[in-house]
Amino acid sequence: MENHAYVIQVSGNGNLHDSINGRFLPAKMKIRKPKWNIKASEMSNKTFNPIRAIVDSMKIEPNPNKSMIRLSIGDPTVFGNLPTDEEVLHAMKEAIDSGKYNGYAPSIGYQSSREVVASYYTGPEAPLDAMDVILTSGCSQAIEMAIGVLCNPGDNILVPCPGFSLYKTLALSMGIDVKLYNLLPEESWEIDLKQLESLIDDKTSCIIINNPSNPCGSVFSKSHLQKILAVLVTHSCLFYSFYFIQVFPGSRYYPIAPLSTDVPILSCGGLAKRWLVPGWRLGWILIHDRKDLFGSEIREGLIRLSQRILGPCTIVQGALKDIINNPSQEFYSSTIHIMKSNADICYNSLSSVPGLRPVRPSGAMYLMVGIEMEHFPEFQSDVDFTERLVAEQSVFCLPATCFEYPNFFRIVVTVPEEMMVEACNRIQEFCQQHYEPYSNHIIQDIDCDK
Amino acid sequence: MENHAYVIQVSGNGNLHDSINGRFLPAKMKIRKPKWNIKASEMSNKTFNPIRAIVDSMKIEPNPNKSMIRLSIGDPTVFGNLPTDEEVLHAMKEAIDSGKYNGYAPSIGYQSSREVVASYYTGPEAPLDAMDVILTSGCSQAIEMAIGVLCNPGDNILVPCPGFSLYKTLALSMGIDVKLYNLLPEESWEIDLKQLESLIDDKTSCIIINNPSNPCGSVFSKSHLQKILAVLVTHSCLFYSFYFIQVFPGSRYYPIAPLSTDVPILSCGGLAKRWLVPGWRLGWILIHDRKDLFGSEIREGLIRLSQRILGPCTIVQGALKDIINNPSQEFYSSTIHIMKSNADICYNSLSSVPGLRPVRPSGAMYLMVGIEMEHFPEFQSDVDFTERLVAEQSVFCLPATCFEYPNFFRIVVTVPEEMMVEACNRIQEFCQQHYEPYSNHIIQDIDCDK
Repeated sequence: MENHAYVIQVSGNGNLHDSINGRFLPAKMKIRKPKWNIKASEMSNKTFNPIRAIVDSMKIEPNPNKSMIRLSIGDPTVFGNLPTDEEVLHAMKEAIDSGKYNGYAPSIGYQSSREVVASYYTGPEAPLDAMDVILTSGCSQAIEMAIGVLCNPGDNILVPCPGFSLYKTLALSMGIDVKLYNLLPEESWEIDLKQLESLIDDKTSCIIINNPSNPCGSVFSKSHLQKILAVLVTHSCLFYSFYFIQVFPGSRYYPIAPLSTDVPILSCGGLAKRWLVPGWRLGWILIHDRKDLFGSEIREGLIRLSQRILGPCTIVQGALKDIINNPSQEFYSSTIHIMKSNADICYNSLSSVPGLRPVRPSGAMYLMVGIEMEHFPEFQSDVDFTERLVAEQSVFCLPATCFEYPNFFRIVVTVPEEMMVEACNRIQEFCQQHYEPYSNHIIQDIDCDK
Repeated sequence: MENHAYVIQVSGNGNLHDSINGRFLPAKMKIRKPKWNIKASEMSNKTFNPIRAIVDSMKIEPNPNKSMIRLSIGDPTVFGNLPTDEEVLHAMKEAIDSGKYNGYAPSIGYQSSREVVASYYTGPEAPLDAMDVILTSGCSQAIEMAIGVLCNPGDNILVPCPGFSLYKTLALSMGIDVKLYNLLPEESWEIDLKQLESLIDDKTSCIIINNPSNPCGSVFSKSHLQKILAVLVTHSCLFYSFYFIQVFPGSRYYPIAPLSTDVPILSCGGLAKRWLVPGWRLGWILIHDRKDLFGSEIREGLIRLSQRILGPCTIVQGALKDIINNPSQEFYSSTIHIMKSNADICYNSLSSVPGLRPVRPSGAMYLMVGIEMEHFPEFQSDVDFTERLVAEQSVFCLPATCFEYPNFFRIVVTVPEEMMVEACNRIQEFCQQHYEPYSNHIIQDIDCDK
């Protein structure tokens, strides 16, 4: 078979033979696509992951004399120091042995599994039942569906800056514009509410709030959440994303839904970070809509969207009740203790490093560190800074340019304690070697001016 | 907090206070969305599942004196007669116990798991390695990604008629047009190649071939596949979907990729039907592109799309090697024996029923039955026919209007044998009660004309 010319041979049928030189044409000549001119779709081209783009273009070559410490990976399972609970594993094996969870589930998840999630999050001010829960293939699909049901191409959404890059990746791929609202590091990453409000226009179809925050590790106070709601009650709707509802001792997590009866909220979460099994891909959307402002439209829209790929793995769904209910309190508190302890080590250690400005986290598993770039004139950017930190000290932190927030880097605090200590020592050494005090720097400038 | 008026109170800051009656306006007045005018997105509205729409609007009320037999559900696990292999369950439990598969996998799947799938399908004429495999959240996501990477809004795709409704559901939701090409029941559901070719135009971005077929249970011969390829080599690209690569004894399944070196193929499959665990949501795309016609564009596009929701459950991925390699040959042959035996029972039984024209299947788990509607003048359509079959005989078959193929219905042959026999007897009784021979009918017409 030639692949370079029009050869059509529909066998058993004489009326469609072309010759290569075109003398015998078919009865109806059609316009055809150029041969094999295959291009990836616009949607796939617009699905752009900035973290991958930045990290893939970085030179990540560690110092061969020092072991590599990766503080870049937002996965609590990689070092083995934060295993999930035995009860979680046991629940999965029971679900397998039962033989009851091999077939198709409803596309929004088993009724019984949705009831479990509803019971876990329901409360007197924000009651939930199974019909208010949609199970998804990880929190990523929950976010995809929440944006997908609320927004049309040409709409815009408001996302936090610094913020988790997936919001923007998904929105842009669907032709939805993204506006960044500022979090204020000097206010423990509270939202700049005036600036947030100034961004809202008639094309704003949802506002994404992320609390506790990735990458900041911040946890909003009750009064800040109330102020956010006061802004939002006047405008469009809210879409809320949480990763890790446990926060460090001394702080407190307030779910947003009970604080307002007015603002309709899609709340996205999942098993990943609290039960420490991000690979299992079980997430959920909670629909908070006590004033029936979403109405049946949004619920039915979410159900329709769920029929595209038919929900998460049924074994995890079948195990969900025991996964959520059976681990001891000690499991949760020991996890949070490890993270809090590492966060303290990291914050305290880097606070004393001239040129760095860590922001103390209150939860989640991240910590952001500001770089006083004027004291590191050798480096052009946070990307440059973190690249050199790998080259010299074999410590890899994600430059916060990945979160559209230059001159910061993000540290993940789920590593083993000794690794955390060692990493901080190396960061300290690195900074000492490259720090230039103002006076020095100014003198140099003067020297240069001579 | 009022929810019916413009009250903006950004606390701690006096310059943005509105009064309810509008006397004190903010410095910059902005156009705002009407309050809480929340609509589901166009995309979610366009995500339309015809099976749900048709079935939900049907009156499915069984005869209270007869137990319900559902021949409608394309899920081999519901009756318990087709369990997966013990080795499959064992593999899952080992993956859980290993503790190695709880974290994030690469978004296209673990390298080792992709190698397993590549090894399973590779062959001398169509070699595959891990880079040619993308793991997905079920075959549904494989189809979503394959359409998503190849097609832009305004393009069209060609899909089989009768055919699996998800192709159309997904395409229309993405703004992609769908053209139906005909399968010919009198030719064991081979493709009407002339008609297929007549549909191809300069906006055709892919052609979906489904073999073995849902809903037909047909399996294409080698020579028919070659004729399909002869058409396709001249045009755009092919996207191929298979559900169930084992076929009934006496037939043979030919994968399409080895039959051509020219046509680039995305081949979608998964664990669902061969390993009898559809709920586990593990599917794959195989990239066959020996002439490098997809190039890096399509591969990279698929990788980008995979980053949206980050692949299938890692436990199933971790177990994949043993799931695919460890079940005994007897497991596969016993499964296929049960389906073949049921298909024979059903075909033989319904062949002798006046007014029905079953089409003998060669594989998969479905069988299509034509209704000679002129002999059932009581019923207006296949939907009407199947609705009454439930009401009188408590047997539910899916009307083939669900597959855009009126005057047929689909039977799923995965039920226990005694249920299959009983269902066929009841269908026979139903048809006997409603069948009107031509002569009768013509006489009636003459009577009416008088």
